[in-house]
Amino acid sequence: MIFVSSNKHKFLEISRMMENKGITVEWKRMKYEEIQADTTEEISLDSARKLSASIGEPFFLEDTGIFLDSLGGFPGPYSSYVQSKIGNSGILRLIEGRNRSAYFLTVITYFDGRLFHQFSGKLNGTIAQSERGNLGFGYDPIFIPDGFDITLGEMELESKNRISHRSKALQALVDYLLANHGI
Amino acid sequence: MIFVSSNKHKFLEISRMMENKGITVEWKRMKYEEIQADTTEEISLDSARKLSASIGEPFFLEDTGIFLDSLGGFPGPYSSYVQSKIGNSGILRLIEGRNRSAYFLTVITYFDGRLFHQFSGKLNGTIAQSERGNLGFGYDPIFIPDGFDITLGEMELESKNRISHRSKALQALVDYLLANHGI
Repeated sequence: MIFVSSNKHKFLEISRMMENKGITVEWKRMKYEEIQADTTEEISLDSARKLSASIGEPFFLEDTGIFLDSLGGFPGPYSSYVQSKIGNSGILRLIEGRNRSAYFLTVITYFDGRLFHQFSGKLNGTIAQSERGNLGFGYDPIFIPDGFDITLGEMELESKNRISHRSKALQALVDYLLANHGI
Repeated sequence: MIFVSSNKHKFLEISRMMENKGITVEWKRMKYEEIQADTTEEISLDSARKLSASIGEPFFLEDTGIFLDSLGGFPGPYSSYVQSKIGNSGILRLIEGRNRSAYFLTVITYFDGRLFHQFSGKLNGTIAQSERGNLGFGYDPIFIPDGFDITLGEMELESKNRISHRSKALQALVDYLLANHGI
């Protein structure tokens, strides 16, 4: 199964999870063009459509964003850009004194060689008062999943993979593949 | 001359400036797809290329962003999205205690029916301590142009048009048209 991404962290998380299910993931390491749009689903589907023309065989890609309730879903589809510019400290400034609930959303778009299928996974939680932990990547050190008192940055990969938005989306993809292709 | 935009404020500014130069601007009011990219130039050129296929006659469009030095150029190409989500108050939070220098950049891409030409205009300034004025739009109330002690939100349109990033880019377009097509 080909996974298209320029992000090593994502590939490592995904290949580990798929390995545990007996599926080998081949990493097609590349950047691809993304449109600006209001939803992660829209951006992901557009990317997959464009890539399908050149890749021509089954593949999947994933888009993940963090959505802060009190900021109208910011940074959402632009999470990666925003992280690179204002970082977690910028998010902490913006959210100070406000409702801290947030969620991570992963959308996977799978191209089966003919059609596109989308699967998503969500993880609800709270923005921490400060950065904690140096595991994971991106917003992990400021995100406390519901039901926990540690951030994703303080959580080992195996534990993160049991609850994460990314693993939920991936599980939905795997369930689909098993039901439809008997992989 | 056709101007493509979904933004009424931009059309009003541009049609007023062009009128003063004796050029009538026809507003093609539409939203179009934009890619995610690091530079305004890249996004604008890509949009113009895609639009040229359907419009087929000469037109221009403009992209404007505000770039904050101490935030690595944030929000830059995503200024419109960021404004809609965190607003000027969000920017004021992010910049608190930091270097407040910033600039506005407008990039115009003009399609002459065959080729694409780009023109840009820049306005240097400082982020104000608080929002001031209700003229203009977007980031105008928090932007003090160099050499002034009022924000663009406190400046009448005629005055803003004499110094703005948008008018500089537009002047470059007009100079080009006059030199090459004798409009």
